[in-house]
Amino acid sequence: MQIPAPFLPPPRLLMGPGPSNVAPSVLQAMSRPLVGHLDPAFVKMMEEIKVMLRAVFQTQNEMTFPVSGTGSAGMEFCFVNLIEPGDEVIVGLNGVFGTRMADVAERCGANVIKVEAPWGRIIEPGQIAEALKKSRPKLVAVVHAETSTGALTPVEEISRLAHEAGALFVLDAVTSLAGCPVKIDEWNVDAVYSGTQKCLSCPPGLSPVSLSSRALEVARQRKKKVQSWYLDVNLLASYWGQERVYHHTAPITMNYAIHEALRLTLLEGLEQRWQRHLANHLALKDGLAAMGLSLGAQEGHQLWQLNAVKVPEGADEAVVRKRLLTEFNIEVGAGLGPLKGKIWRVGLMGETSTRENVKSFLNALGQIL
Amino acid sequence: MQIPAPFLPPPRLLMGPGPSNVAPSVLQAMSRPLVGHLDPAFVKMMEEIKVMLRAVFQTQNEMTFPVSGTGSAGMEFCFVNLIEPGDEVIVGLNGVFGTRMADVAERCGANVIKVEAPWGRIIEPGQIAEALKKSRPKLVAVVHAETSTGALTPVEEISRLAHEAGALFVLDAVTSLAGCPVKIDEWNVDAVYSGTQKCLSCPPGLSPVSLSSRALEVARQRKKKVQSWYLDVNLLASYWGQERVYHHTAPITMNYAIHEALRLTLLEGLEQRWQRHLANHLALKDGLAAMGLSLGAQEGHQLWQLNAVKVPEGADEAVVRKRLLTEFNIEVGAGLGPLKGKIWRVGLMGETSTRENVKSFLNALGQIL
Repeated sequence: MQIPAPFLPPPRLLMGPGPSNVAPSVLQAMSRPLVGHLDPAFVKMMEEIKVMLRAVFQTQNEMTFPVSGTGSAGMEFCFVNLIEPGDEVIVGLNGVFGTRMADVAERCGANVIKVEAPWGRIIEPGQIAEALKKSRPKLVAVVHAETSTGALTPVEEISRLAHEAGALFVLDAVTSLAGCPVKIDEWNVDAVYSGTQKCLSCPPGLSPVSLSSRALEVARQRKKKVQSWYLDVNLLASYWGQERVYHHTAPITMNYAIHEALRLTLLEGLEQRWQRHLANHLALKDGLAAMGLSLGAQEGHQLWQLNAVKVPEGADEAVVRKRLLTEFNIEVGAGLGPLKGKIWRVGLMGETSTRENVKSFLNALGQIL
Repeated sequence: MQIPAPFLPPPRLLMGPGPSNVAPSVLQAMSRPLVGHLDPAFVKMMEEIKVMLRAVFQTQNEMTFPVSGTGSAGMEFCFVNLIEPGDEVIVGLNGVFGTRMADVAERCGANVIKVEAPWGRIIEPGQIAEALKKSRPKLVAVVHAETSTGALTPVEEISRLAHEAGALFVLDAVTSLAGCPVKIDEWNVDAVYSGTQKCLSCPPGLSPVSLSSRALEVARQRKKKVQSWYLDVNLLASYWGQERVYHHTAPITMNYAIHEALRLTLLEGLEQRWQRHLANHLALKDGLAAMGLSLGAQEGHQLWQLNAVKVPEGADEAVVRKRLLTEFNIEVGAGLGPLKGKIWRVGLMGETSTRENVKSFLNALGQIL
């Protein structure tokens, strides 16, 4: 066979729904030589990752660590550990990721009660309250920042309603974490998962998760074994906890990367980082308005890190997107499902969220349109 | 909080059960800037990975790609896709990983028939034949190279027996791939999984897998959805196949790494690579014999890439292992389960398998003992 040449990636400004651009020091961290997954030096670094993740999630939860898979593995981690066949669960569906949660929950044998909102709109607390009148769910799950639509669902009230009904509250914070306020303890979230390739600006490959002691107790008291060996928190706790019992071989290099990405996040400061995401979102929104363009998500609930830009009349969504990539090396995302062909998804996440990048994008889009 | 300093790993010679040492060009590949998971340049690279993986697995199987998790995720991938609740399966248990396969299969709802051999010995075809007389299993699964014991089970005859009985044949090739002959098509293997951090000398984080068309058909014709959304081959096929439908965000950087590691493997040549592993294994064995030490695995079936060195009378296994790490920066593995305290697991995998490393290890061990 013909052996391929080394892969040299083209330079891209990553303004899609993730991955976002990665800081040079994170890339450098990944080029460092490997150590073993039980090496005392690695174990010490794992502890630092846990401490930093707790700060970023704003939680004291002991069980806070990165699952060895991408964000969707983190989603599955939460559901497989908490659900047993026949359990009733309420899931909010207002985009791709709520839909995925319902699918994952059903694969765990759950009886899923779907609370739906049109794509681009938020899940209203009143809808959850209504669903809770007719059920006794084990958990209520919603997506915080819907990456497929650009809408941010406020979750404090939903969490309160869930707990009043005796249910656990599960949150998808894949796109929200480190780009806007995410307060796990203050909001009383029992299980949360995120991704590394969004506002943490680390390559994809890990899924930071956090479980409250209440959620952990539910996982510990299960009647039936967790259906996934790989994601069983009862086994993972022995490796990420103090016992250091071998479970799987941790992705060493990805952990180097998240360690550095968390450092950069905390060195900037969470509040400052959120404000930066807000400011660049507003700059983009203003610039788009000046071009006669607007965002598709519900007014007042638009994400700072992911902007669903409405495709104007007469423009071909795919052609514009392709020209952005090939002529300007700018990647933006396509719409999915009912939004296919109707929006561009313009990410301003982590390292990508700068005023200069906003200008580059507006300039490129202006030239094409 | 006190933000930790950047993590600078200590220099280690990785002679444990994996990860093994990683080539400089693989580390360099991981420091390259990111592109998106649907970028045409990335998609082209995915195709190259598939082609190279087929060459390394010695298969024509279309469905050959790296699962976005470590080797254990690959194990789970094979079982969740092929097993439905109530299915009968035969699993060979002669170490940690056969035991894990049985656990994973049970979590899929399988009725597991366990064929056991003492740790350090191989699974004999006669044992499988015996088990097949009393059952009608959907699949027969064995571990090729048992990383926990250092034994290599020959699998051609077992595969033949499985197929004669109408069963699929599933193989764990985590430690064998690229370090000794693994011939998926010639041996008629229906589902195989491996890891990247062993003889491919790529960091842990991906699990190369391959499914025969027969196995794929079983997954397609299932009555019940695959219990894992993340590992559902019917969904993954749309991303890794020609449709390129978004499933999860692929771990971009890890794919850069495996692309380069596969290139290096094929540039060396598979046959040459196997011979190198054999030669260094023999050099180690000779050197150990000269020191009055020997290997614990069954004679005639000892792995070339992982050597279970028997701890001599009077030596403290843990103390010696710790001194190798702290005084010589050499990592070796401990024994697990019934072999705890009785063996050191000395890996000569991929980049680690050199005559110089054999000498360094023998020299260090000699000084300590």
